[in-house]
Amino acid sequence: MNRIITIGREFGSGGREFGRRLSEELGFAYYDQEIISEIARRTSLSEQYVRAIEEHLPMFSFPIHIGRSFYSSVNPTFDQTMIVYQEQARIIAEMAEKSDCVIVGRCADFVLKAYQPFRIFVYADMESKIRRCREKGPEEEKLGDKELKQQILAVDKKRARYYEYYTGHFWGDKLNFDLCINTTRMVVKEIVPAIAKLF
Amino acid sequence: MNRIITIGREFGSGGREFGRRLSEELGFAYYDQEIISEIARRTSLSEQYVRAIEEHLPMFSFPIHIGRSFYSSVNPTFDQTMIVYQEQARIIAEMAEKSDCVIVGRCADFVLKAYQPFRIFVYADMESKIRRCREKGPEEEKLGDKELKQQILAVDKKRARYYEYYTGHFWGDKLNFDLCINTTRMVVKEIVPAIAKLF
Repeated sequence: MNRIITIGREFGSGGREFGRRLSEELGFAYYDQEIISEIARRTSLSEQYVRAIEEHLPMFSFPIHIGRSFYSSVNPTFDQTMIVYQEQARIIAEMAEKSDCVIVGRCADFVLKAYQPFRIFVYADMESKIRRCREKGPEEEKLGDKELKQQILAVDKKRARYYEYYTGHFWGDKLNFDLCINTTRMVVKEIVPAIAKLF
Repeated sequence: MNRIITIGREFGSGGREFGRRLSEELGFAYYDQEIISEIARRTSLSEQYVRAIEEHLPMFSFPIHIGRSFYSSVNPTFDQTMIVYQEQARIIAEMAEKSDCVIVGRCADFVLKAYQPFRIFVYADMESKIRRCREKGPEEEKLGDKELKQQILAVDKKRARYYEYYTGHFWGDKLNFDLCINTTRMVVKEIVPAIAKLF
């Protein structure tokens, strides 16, 4: 069976960087953005649209005449979100079948349960997440600490809801992971070689 | 400054074994039982007594005549528990000053805050903790799963209360640790060399 590593991560914790570096260190395939491209290809939805609805919960758009039209087929948003989730789960399983790999986000730890993935969660305290977000790019630089904090909380709230909706577990609960790494006082690239030794 | 590693652990998770093996791998001093012996030596209390009151909260033994005798000096149990905690904190700080070391339990992560210790928490699911307890010794072998589970829950409840009383933090909250290791699917001695590479 292939070795699968899944990475859950708080926004701004450096989890994505950690996943990418770990895959390079191990010579494993790395899947993140690639999953979106593949969903877009298979569903004929645009990548931008897939990204927008990818980590959202299905939304019911209740029809006005409930008696006549309360079917999922008249809820296009609900349908598409479910299609994206199901397609995503299928793609993740195919990737796990193909080779050793690192998969970031997308409930991969839950979707791939049968493959017994090594489940890592990356997190940090708010101060260091703000610092990391600011270092990331020019867009974030323009935001103040308060705005960045709000953005971080909003993204993580969405991730938590999404994870809890599809898995029934609390997002970030350490019992659902094999290793939880707090990057507050760590430099991501310095810890990767040690963690890679676990595999 | 010396390198300090503190280990918090759930009962039956293999945290103590992990700490001991990590100290051996790194050539660091290891403190666990040694702390009890040192407290006993300094306070003239027996080791057995120190062990019995070591991880308990101070208990008030309310006097009958509150108006006349409500002073801590008439509460010998409270006094001794506080003395043991304070002596323990002093000894832990001395150990941290002496050399690189691994310290198991005893709120060392909190006591040694100023030394910026690397804080590890070791945990596991209930099933694997029961299995580990059973493998540990002949005494536990006699207990059924239900009794072992009760014992594990009781010990951890005591640890949680103790930790929360002295530190004001929730015991096992991942934000208070740099690394949380779930030993449910791991063999402790196999992961030690990789984790040691972090130092």
